[in-house]
Amino acid sequence: MSTQSILHRVDAEISTYIEQLAGFVRIPSISAGADQDAAGAIAQAADFLVEEFIRLGLSAEKVQVTAATNPLIVAHSTAFSAARPTVLIYGHYDVQGVDNPRSAWDVDPFAAVIEDGMLIGRGASDNKGPTFAHLKAVDAILSAAGELPVDLVFLIEGEEECGSKAIGQYIASGGLDSFKPIICTVISDTSMYGPDQPSLTLGLRGIVFTEATVYGPRQDVHSGLFGGIIHNPNHLLVQALSALFDEDGRIAVPAFYDDVRPLSEREQTLYRSLPVDEDGYRKTLGVTELIGEPQYSLLERRWTRPTLDVNFLSGGSPRTVIPAQAQAALSCRLVPDQDPGRIEAAIHDHLSAHLPAGTRLEFSGAHHAPPYYLDPDHPLVQPTLNALRSGFDIDPILSREGGSIPIVTDIEKNTGAPVLLVGLGQITDNWHGPNECFSLKDFHRGIRTSVALLHEIGSV
Amino acid sequence: MSTQSILHRVDAEISTYIEQLAGFVRIPSISAGADQDAAGAIAQAADFLVEEFIRLGLSAEKVQVTAATNPLIVAHSTAFSAARPTVLIYGHYDVQGVDNPRSAWDVDPFAAVIEDGMLIGRGASDNKGPTFAHLKAVDAILSAAGELPVDLVFLIEGEEECGSKAIGQYIASGGLDSFKPIICTVISDTSMYGPDQPSLTLGLRGIVFTEATVYGPRQDVHSGLFGGIIHNPNHLLVQALSALFDEDGRIAVPAFYDDVRPLSEREQTLYRSLPVDEDGYRKTLGVTELIGEPQYSLLERRWTRPTLDVNFLSGGSPRTVIPAQAQAALSCRLVPDQDPGRIEAAIHDHLSAHLPAGTRLEFSGAHHAPPYYLDPDHPLVQPTLNALRSGFDIDPILSREGGSIPIVTDIEKNTGAPVLLVGLGQITDNWHGPNECFSLKDFHRGIRTSVALLHEIGSV
Repeated sequence: MSTQSILHRVDAEISTYIEQLAGFVRIPSISAGADQDAAGAIAQAADFLVEEFIRLGLSAEKVQVTAATNPLIVAHSTAFSAARPTVLIYGHYDVQGVDNPRSAWDVDPFAAVIEDGMLIGRGASDNKGPTFAHLKAVDAILSAAGELPVDLVFLIEGEEECGSKAIGQYIASGGLDSFKPIICTVISDTSMYGPDQPSLTLGLRGIVFTEATVYGPRQDVHSGLFGGIIHNPNHLLVQALSALFDEDGRIAVPAFYDDVRPLSEREQTLYRSLPVDEDGYRKTLGVTELIGEPQYSLLERRWTRPTLDVNFLSGGSPRTVIPAQAQAALSCRLVPDQDPGRIEAAIHDHLSAHLPAGTRLEFSGAHHAPPYYLDPDHPLVQPTLNALRSGFDIDPILSREGGSIPIVTDIEKNTGAPVLLVGLGQITDNWHGPNECFSLKDFHRGIRTSVALLHEIGSV
Repeated sequence: MSTQSILHRVDAEISTYIEQLAGFVRIPSISAGADQDAAGAIAQAADFLVEEFIRLGLSAEKVQVTAATNPLIVAHSTAFSAARPTVLIYGHYDVQGVDNPRSAWDVDPFAAVIEDGMLIGRGASDNKGPTFAHLKAVDAILSAAGELPVDLVFLIEGEEECGSKAIGQYIASGGLDSFKPIICTVISDTSMYGPDQPSLTLGLRGIVFTEATVYGPRQDVHSGLFGGIIHNPNHLLVQALSALFDEDGRIAVPAFYDDVRPLSEREQTLYRSLPVDEDGYRKTLGVTELIGEPQYSLLERRWTRPTLDVNFLSGGSPRTVIPAQAQAALSCRLVPDQDPGRIEAAIHDHLSAHLPAGTRLEFSGAHHAPPYYLDPDHPLVQPTLNALRSGFDIDPILSREGGSIPIVTDIEKNTGAPVLLVGLGQITDNWHGPNECFSLKDFHRGIRTSVALLHEIGSV
């Protein structure tokens, strides 16, 4: 049976698929924060998925990696054939909380209201809708053609919004070994480049996050009694943080830029050809100017250049005290070939070097993820672009993203295979914010893309 | 009748006076914070004082300056004579809260427990005990001699711990005019130099307090999506604050030190002769080193040199955001002849000058007080030292303090007369902290000092 007929099946079934997605979005499977897991909704969402997979004819189970973690859904083809490549599809069924704040929502975040072609609800875009598109692609293929062009493994986790512990442990302890070789992983947890602009995301920035605390007197003390005779931790912290940048705002940590792989001419040309609405950025962000390294374009700065941001400052109180301690949280976005551990050490050393000898400085809360990068010449890139073209009827582009998804590099390393990032959401879908929404047109086109992609990969 | 016989009266009556003071301390007259004014205790403390003054034979009233302020107690001699100088005595009957934290108190903060010669209770030292010493001095004089050597005005406020609004307005609107000329004001709301070391405090540092907020994007935004293309308010704030100091930690705000009056040789000699336990400071503060301007002694740095402290830092959250704003609270301690308004403007200008053009920077929460200074050659200095010697049987010293008491310069300016700062508490009495206490020996010696001081002033 031709891919075309299966795509027609998708078009015919789309209203049923939308109804089923709405049912998935109605489950308040919040994994973190004050309102987490209302009424056992995590288990409910996990059961919903297992039943879906079994109805499709796949094997499916809830894997309880540790007693304290949310179930990881592992589903896969019932029989594997050496003649078919195996594709891994990743997604998550847990969602962010809705108290951010709850009053900012215009509708019930779990009513799955549909307005102007958008499905409004927590998790609609991050990540239930895009994940569900792949399930519905399998549904369409199997009901129309009776068999899949590839062997499939789904890993759908319930902890993406709270640290991905279970899946991390599952992968690290060889959970995927029996499914190997895996030709590639497909993930729809990034964004499209813009409305009606499907894209394959070639890169994600890595991350280093660390918290630094500078200590002073035993407890907050009176600045009148002791001002002028002891170090003020706020000052020490400010001086050390200030030394992270030079006068032009460039990161002054020694060796920070050493390992940055220059952008290829090919990618530079690609990204410089993309339309960029700088005025739109300014308006959305509410800033009067966009800044950054002048020799790089806006997209290059967002996607391909490393950054260092002080995310958090805290010290003392708005009264006349010299505080006992001052704290900052810092994070870097990293690009190929920067090493998170090396960068973290360089930052720690630089901060220490800019404090007086004997200052008590402690680091905590560190976490890391290396950057992810897919070569645009990789043999799976063209098939993916073909699939996006079939799914959307629009010429797709190659892009990158500035954010980080730690599990992507974990999966890539473990499988030794590329991760194809085909996002279906928009940057304007309000992930983690109020009134999160997902375009049902893109849900439809996403299912079509998944159908086409599995066929493309099956015939590589 | 000789001063000596009146002092004997004090000695004879001291246990009654202590009992009465305990009654005053038992009233939980908290003026600020979560636990303020439990069960109308502010009114109760005000009534307690009015009754005390009337029992002494003075005129006394509760002045309700505005509907929202706590009553100001104004008490005075029933008849004024041109032959007697008029002395103003200031104190406060309101106390700090006890939830700092409540669990840190070893006893009920309002049980007025006596242990090892210390009266333990909130407000015992700040400022009920020292204020009450002056009332008991009047009691002893009137009961032993029948008349006062001076005419007296008492201003006892109920808002010292929450901004001194009522008394400020009372003084500014001419409340003291009918009592003028006033030869001097006596205040016991400072500390002794140390145990068994009575002192006349010649100076208090002034203060400038201001809050600065630097604004960035409309709301906190994702550092992965937007890192590298917009200013981070945490960075801007850190850079601007860092520019407040030079490499040696000296304040780099232009003109900051311009008006600082050099310390006289006389005071320098006085303060360098005082015993200083640097190791004790280090231990109490929990720091490994004492720092500051190397050409000044520790006491000179604490008392006679201006400072700038960043008291508070706040920006963003310990997640990967670029925050919408970052905030700092700063305060300076000022010395003669620095002008708070001029210093505040210089700080504002300096911060602005160290931010990129177009940055939104706003200042708020400012308050000021000029430094207070009494010339050691002022004719009332020797009489005050004589009184301390009579009261304590110990040679008193001249000192300064590093803190600020805004009402002191308000009173000085309005009366055109010096303020004699004769503290009775110790720096170790835990003002504003748990287990506040007051030495009953110093209460006794303080009453004696007040008796002697009124006689000294009466015979100037």
